[in-house]
Amino acid sequence: MTQPVNDLKAWRRLEAHAERMAGPENHLSKLIATPDRLAGFSASGSGLFLDYSRQRVDADVMTTLVDLAGERELTRCFTGMVSGEIVNRTENRAALHTAARDFSGSKITVNGMDAVAELSRVNAEVREFARRIHSGELTGSTGKPFRHAVVIGIGGSYLGTEFVAAALAPVADKNIRLHFLPNVDIDCFGSLAQSIDPESTLWIIISKSYTTTETMANEAQALAFLRENNLDPKDHIVTVTAKGSPGDDPANPVLASFHMFDFIGGRFSVTSAVGGVPLSLYAGFDRFERFLAGAGEMDRHAASAPPEKNLPLIAALISVWNNNFLGYPASAVIPYSTPLSRLPAHIQQLYMESNGKGVTQDGMPLNTESGMIVFGEPGTNAQHSFFQLAHQGRPFPIDFIGVVRPHFEAYRNRSKGVTNHQELWANLIAQPQALATGKADPENKARHFSGNRPSSTLLLNDLSPENIGKLLSFYEAKTVFEAFIWDINPFDQFGVELGKIMASDIRASMAKKNENPEHSFDDAGPIEKAYLEMLFGGSLLG
Amino acid sequence: MTQPVNDLKAWRRLEAHAERMAGPENHLSKLIATPDRLAGFSASGSGLFLDYSRQRVDADVMTTLVDLAGERELTRCFTGMVSGEIVNRTENRAALHTAARDFSGSKITVNGMDAVAELSRVNAEVREFARRIHSGELTGSTGKPFRHAVVIGIGGSYLGTEFVAAALAPVADKNIRLHFLPNVDIDCFGSLAQSIDPESTLWIIISKSYTTTETMANEAQALAFLRENNLDPKDHIVTVTAKGSPGDDPANPVLASFHMFDFIGGRFSVTSAVGGVPLSLYAGFDRFERFLAGAGEMDRHAASAPPEKNLPLIAALISVWNNNFLGYPASAVIPYSTPLSRLPAHIQQLYMESNGKGVTQDGMPLNTESGMIVFGEPGTNAQHSFFQLAHQGRPFPIDFIGVVRPHFEAYRNRSKGVTNHQELWANLIAQPQALATGKADPENKARHFSGNRPSSTLLLNDLSPENIGKLLSFYEAKTVFEAFIWDINPFDQFGVELGKIMASDIRASMAKKNENPEHSFDDAGPIEKAYLEMLFGGSLLG
Repeated sequence: MTQPVNDLKAWRRLEAHAERMAGPENHLSKLIATPDRLAGFSASGSGLFLDYSRQRVDADVMTTLVDLAGERELTRCFTGMVSGEIVNRTENRAALHTAARDFSGSKITVNGMDAVAELSRVNAEVREFARRIHSGELTGSTGKPFRHAVVIGIGGSYLGTEFVAAALAPVADKNIRLHFLPNVDIDCFGSLAQSIDPESTLWIIISKSYTTTETMANEAQALAFLRENNLDPKDHIVTVTAKGSPGDDPANPVLASFHMFDFIGGRFSVTSAVGGVPLSLYAGFDRFERFLAGAGEMDRHAASAPPEKNLPLIAALISVWNNNFLGYPASAVIPYSTPLSRLPAHIQQLYMESNGKGVTQDGMPLNTESGMIVFGEPGTNAQHSFFQLAHQGRPFPIDFIGVVRPHFEAYRNRSKGVTNHQELWANLIAQPQALATGKADPENKARHFSGNRPSSTLLLNDLSPENIGKLLSFYEAKTVFEAFIWDINPFDQFGVELGKIMASDIRASMAKKNENPEHSFDDAGPIEKAYLEMLFGGSLLG
Repeated sequence: MTQPVNDLKAWRRLEAHAERMAGPENHLSKLIATPDRLAGFSASGSGLFLDYSRQRVDADVMTTLVDLAGERELTRCFTGMVSGEIVNRTENRAALHTAARDFSGSKITVNGMDAVAELSRVNAEVREFARRIHSGELTGSTGKPFRHAVVIGIGGSYLGTEFVAAALAPVADKNIRLHFLPNVDIDCFGSLAQSIDPESTLWIIISKSYTTTETMANEAQALAFLRENNLDPKDHIVTVTAKGSPGDDPANPVLASFHMFDFIGGRFSVTSAVGGVPLSLYAGFDRFERFLAGAGEMDRHAASAPPEKNLPLIAALISVWNNNFLGYPASAVIPYSTPLSRLPAHIQQLYMESNGKGVTQDGMPLNTESGMIVFGEPGTNAQHSFFQLAHQGRPFPIDFIGVVRPHFEAYRNRSKGVTNHQELWANLIAQPQALATGKADPENKARHFSGNRPSSTLLLNDLSPENIGKLLSFYEAKTVFEAFIWDINPFDQFGVELGKIMASDIRASMAKKNENPEHSFDDAGPIEKAYLEMLFGGSLLG
């Protein structure tokens, strides 16, 4: 049985540090004024730069956090995960997303299967498939080349790919538009159907079990749409699914089927065929492979860098510090880069689904809060939206993300003496500083800034596929490091099951009504019944 | 001097109620099992239905909340705002967004100006302008009809319009694509420039002062782009700005200029010309006017319905209850309707910028927490993203939003016996119930659901322009009611000023470097200097 986290020696010392750091002498305006603050509270690794100088930490706090990492053996936990240990104990599975970008020749055996070799086989299939699509060798039923690809998949089969696709959009030169159909909402399908050319559309159905309700309902819509347009599904559908699932069944022929595996969970799957198929069609397999290489480089950094130089490990320790010791309940991710605009939504899933847990690996109640709420929008948009609250309302820690060179760096018109990109950075530089220092205004309290609001800044050189991969892997590693600290399982998600079961009961009642207009909904609870009557009656109560 | 909110009698009683409601006998599973729970804890008004049966309230709590509304004279505050009182005291302004949809013939005089008549005059101009664009009477420099409209505006000049445009997208039949260029990030402009046809593009520049840094930088990009394409700005640019601003100056001729006013703040401005110009071009002035009519109807409901039947007032009281008495720091908005996918981002600004304040109207420290953090994504997507945390991690209240009839209700294929829309509703019905009741699993703690997680459900009949207007006005009224409870000013935003001042200093340093490559950045602080060197050096430290 693993020791409860709040019994660890370092944890107790951190509690004392937290009291100390609450004092006015440790206000961030004081901390950042100490000599060499940036040099002492930043780290470079794997081509990324992490500045945590504006976090509410001093050298003693950082030393104790590193001690916590040592007591919890975080590096050993991480390398155990990478080498195929059964880290997802409730589901008796390994968690080998890192194997999807391991080109070092490792051999990792899982249930008798060579995981790296299997992933490599699938990648070779993806590469060849993308080549045949791009060359025009594979076309739709009527011979038209594919110009639209629609991803039907939800949650982990969608959010990571959407983030990466947006980041690579300016270099996506394959003349294929990528669309996402995650939501079962018919308005999602209806809008999409208006915006595509049926003959030149490829549908990519992504579901490990090939039973996900939303995905199957949308697949049914896609099949009906193909039939209405006299197109053959076997020319227009590919699947990404587990071997032998209903989506990988020769009885239902499709253009191609790519395997996904039990040892990679949905929210960690964008470097598998889940991201590989759509991203290769959209931006080319070569760019997808460069994206994998970047993620692999950050994986190696996370596995091998010493704690005090390990970017995702430092970020995880500070996140736990902010959460469990300083008491912040939520945290924002603010990329100062429009192509990263869907990174917050991806991290929201990755982090909140992984770490929104209440029990330890041993099934004991966790004696402290686990994952924070994560949200975000791009800067400077966010400054003109919710930063009022960040500066003068309820404080929350922020991850600022900056990119030294944008995609469109050739635009150099100046306004107020600076280019747009320089203006963006003027804000990226100013905001963490303003949040940290504040500004007293004893005369006009409405203009008083209390400061002491923590943030980190993570910088990339550019939006190369490699760097997008590093950014992805950074947040994956940060997420699992936090889980290892709490000794929770970041790879299961039993919390989504109860709602599914209840929806299933309601669906059954609806199906009865569809079959028999006399069905009364008396099988549902009174509140549920009222809703069912509104839906089937087509109008609201009262 | 207004009495501090926590000195009010009702407030003290609510503190006692909160202790009582924490007991196991008041777990939500118990509360919702009481007879007629839905009838007792729901309200209809202005065509919307608000179900708060899954909130952690009982009849005594609701009575005391209504007493709080009475002690704070919320209805009087609201009607005062509507009638033009100077409710924005720090800026000595009225807050008359409601006047933008008041077609009752009221006369509201502000600084000697008839506000309703002025708004009506601008609306008539917008109507005529849209007619001339749609008829092809007004074209670009080369005679091509306008097929793209780009909104250059940030924060309140963008988020509300984006939300409404997405909601109306399926009925937008004017053959004009609407784009948004809020962010100063050059990758925002660069991507846009690749996706439009310059000759058929109209640029709508929105800024009250016409000095907003981001907007001016993007306007400069647009002007350069027009020049490069040999197009005349006076044929391709319209402005929405204050009378006499640099954007309303005959020395800089534009195709048209529409006025906005000091008495409507940015985040409340979508029913003014800020939304009127782009939405009329995109979906027609008639639909914009129907949207206004819906908002006006909800305004009248908010101003006149008794507290216990007043939807936005009830929602505000429950929000304060959840925040200040039950201690929830954040709240999610989850529309089960893809066309409402940008509603959460709009409310995030509306609510967090309005209510993220630390001082009362009298400049006294607020003795309780003000606005919560707001975030959200559409359902069912959110279920496959962060609902794990909602069910088993840190609890947060949720606003579920449902639409009885979708835009694309003609699609009726069934999967598992139900249509896609029915499946969506099965989930909309199941989630609040699962969150409220939970499910004990003493055997397997990883599958244990503690329940007692509160939510409301707000229902609309359909996505008509009127209903979108009601939804907008509902959240506007809820926001200001909460501010009136705390006695804070929801209409100023001094919290964004410090960051602007600091960015201005950094910009000045950058501009010097642009002029003189020898400039050293020694005028900046040490951390700022390191960032400036990375940016101008084109690569990261270390």
